[in-house]
Amino acid sequence: MMKTNFKAIEFMDDNFIFIDQTKLPLSEEYIATDDYERIAEAIECLEVRGAPQIGVAVAYALALSVKNFNKDIPERFERAYKRLRITRPTAVNLFWALGIMKESFENYSGSDYYNHLLAEAKVIHSDDYARCEKIASNGLEIFAKKSTVLTHCNTGQLATGGEGTAFNVIKKGYENGLVEFVYADETRPLFQGSRLTAFELEKSGIPFAINTDSTAAVLMSQGKIDIVIVGSDRIAVNGDVANKIGTYSLAVLCDFHKIPFYVATPTSTIDRLCPDGSKIKIELRDKKEVLMYNCVEITRSYYDVYSPAFDVTPAKLITGIITEKALHKAPYNLTDV
Amino acid sequence: MMKTNFKAIEFMDDNFIFIDQTKLPLSEEYIATDDYERIAEAIECLEVRGAPQIGVAVAYALALSVKNFNKDIPERFERAYKRLRITRPTAVNLFWALGIMKESFENYSGSDYYNHLLAEAKVIHSDDYARCEKIASNGLEIFAKKSTVLTHCNTGQLATGGEGTAFNVIKKGYENGLVEFVYADETRPLFQGSRLTAFELEKSGIPFAINTDSTAAVLMSQGKIDIVIVGSDRIAVNGDVANKIGTYSLAVLCDFHKIPFYVATPTSTIDRLCPDGSKIKIELRDKKEVLMYNCVEITRSYYDVYSPAFDVTPAKLITGIITEKALHKAPYNLTDV
Repeated sequence: MMKTNFKAIEFMDDNFIFIDQTKLPLSEEYIATDDYERIAEAIECLEVRGAPQIGVAVAYALALSVKNFNKDIPERFERAYKRLRITRPTAVNLFWALGIMKESFENYSGSDYYNHLLAEAKVIHSDDYARCEKIASNGLEIFAKKSTVLTHCNTGQLATGGEGTAFNVIKKGYENGLVEFVYADETRPLFQGSRLTAFELEKSGIPFAINTDSTAAVLMSQGKIDIVIVGSDRIAVNGDVANKIGTYSLAVLCDFHKIPFYVATPTSTIDRLCPDGSKIKIELRDKKEVLMYNCVEITRSYYDVYSPAFDVTPAKLITGIITEKALHKAPYNLTDV
Repeated sequence: MMKTNFKAIEFMDDNFIFIDQTKLPLSEEYIATDDYERIAEAIECLEVRGAPQIGVAVAYALALSVKNFNKDIPERFERAYKRLRITRPTAVNLFWALGIMKESFENYSGSDYYNHLLAEAKVIHSDDYARCEKIASNGLEIFAKKSTVLTHCNTGQLATGGEGTAFNVIKKGYENGLVEFVYADETRPLFQGSRLTAFELEKSGIPFAINTDSTAAVLMSQGKIDIVIVGSDRIAVNGDVANKIGTYSLAVLCDFHKIPFYVATPTSTIDRLCPDGSKIKIELRDKKEVLMYNCVEITRSYYDVYSPAFDVTPAKLITGIITEKALHKAPYNLTDV
């Protein structure tokens, strides 16, 4: 039986609780841990994922790294900090949240590090929730009429500390009668669309269909798509956007079909040290993700694969960037946003 | 152990023998049958596939439909003809080959229908082989330099009665020092690229890597792709091309990145009654192909899916169409080709 509601992440009884996203939607399994190493592993194997959610998760992980200890606290914190830093390379929220926690740690003069850091993590979490709400309300103005939306990967509660970025714009749009149907790219290789976005669309009661990634072009040519909205893992200050592989392809297709292409993301995703997309480090994923499914070989495991986890969409292809601050339009200068 | 050679289809000892493409490349299993119904089922479940190969297979199937019978021959032939007609709707070679066989049947005044039809089927088969060779030699002129090619789906021996269409252009290009590397789109949902094209590239000793379909855009933006070559399931006389879903997306991406986009196909794929692509019937596939892999659920089986097997690429996006007759350039008029 499906529960009618779910919580992607939660902090309760001194434990970080997360739904195992690798098992969704076929099974809803929750894992509770107070071990930062377990959280690091969860991020690495995508049990916890989505740039904003990763930021929240590492904040709790750092707090937990000093729980139950009253000596060697700086060493313990530093060890956890370094461990969490290498979990994934592209999502800037990871480094952003680690930076806030580190600064908070270094500026703290009390003795209850755990509760101090936990309070800071809770602020990061609730701030992200609030940002998701603001993104959604700022995003509503992109709908000129009742629209059919296409989205890619997952950007909902499963990707954030709140109700989502692009997903929340779609959800609030639906609740306000501005969205009538959603096409979800399945999002190869890990099926975040057909597994996670479909799961959240179902939970939200929004009518949808899944399509293979290469079918998006056909839907556009048939006039079925009014608008495309995606999230982001890192944004350069010139507006170039790193997001799930397949995003750039969609942006080019939107350009050709004259369909508006929007990115919805919290400002914590802006990399203020990054002038443009060419400087963004792109994670390469293991070829097994393409050559196998669920431990079953699709094709021969020794074949070569090129499998970047993300791609970079140049700012010129982006109609607007929706943050918790505003709906930003080109030319983008996100330095002071 | 892998065999160093294979035969996708063969007629031997009064049996049609085919490699089961649904099991490739993990297992090379051959099936021999003299039952046209078994061949019809093989086409329906994609054990035998590829527009030109389907044409050859139904020709042999019609010959086999009258084998061992000496009464009710017209009824038997007609029943098989009608059965084979409904196996798949888009590949025009199917109807083209059925038409040749029917005409041959109706014009025959002898009494050994089986051997008469078998001889006709063998002509269709050997003609297709010869067309594949001509397509490859006509295609060599598209390579202005040693090139890296991206292709989609499978267009090799596993798709034809010979060495392939687009695949054979690539293969002969490689043998002539004009192709150095191939990127194979995995081709969701059925992985004809990562399973079948990869298998044929390996057998041919051509260096390659597999990419998810949505990664093609990134490869193009990185300057890694010199040329894209695909096959076709049906061509309208104005040059609009129906081919595996994802082809249209590639054509738009090539247009944006100024990369030449070629279609290689025998003239048997031209639908001379079809003025343009809007008249081509597109097969919709079962959603299970998207929601499951190998009987394992990827996501919930009741989710809706939009899964056309093919898409239509407008002629204006096609740099050239390579047939056994010539390398055709726009504006296309394929009526008299």
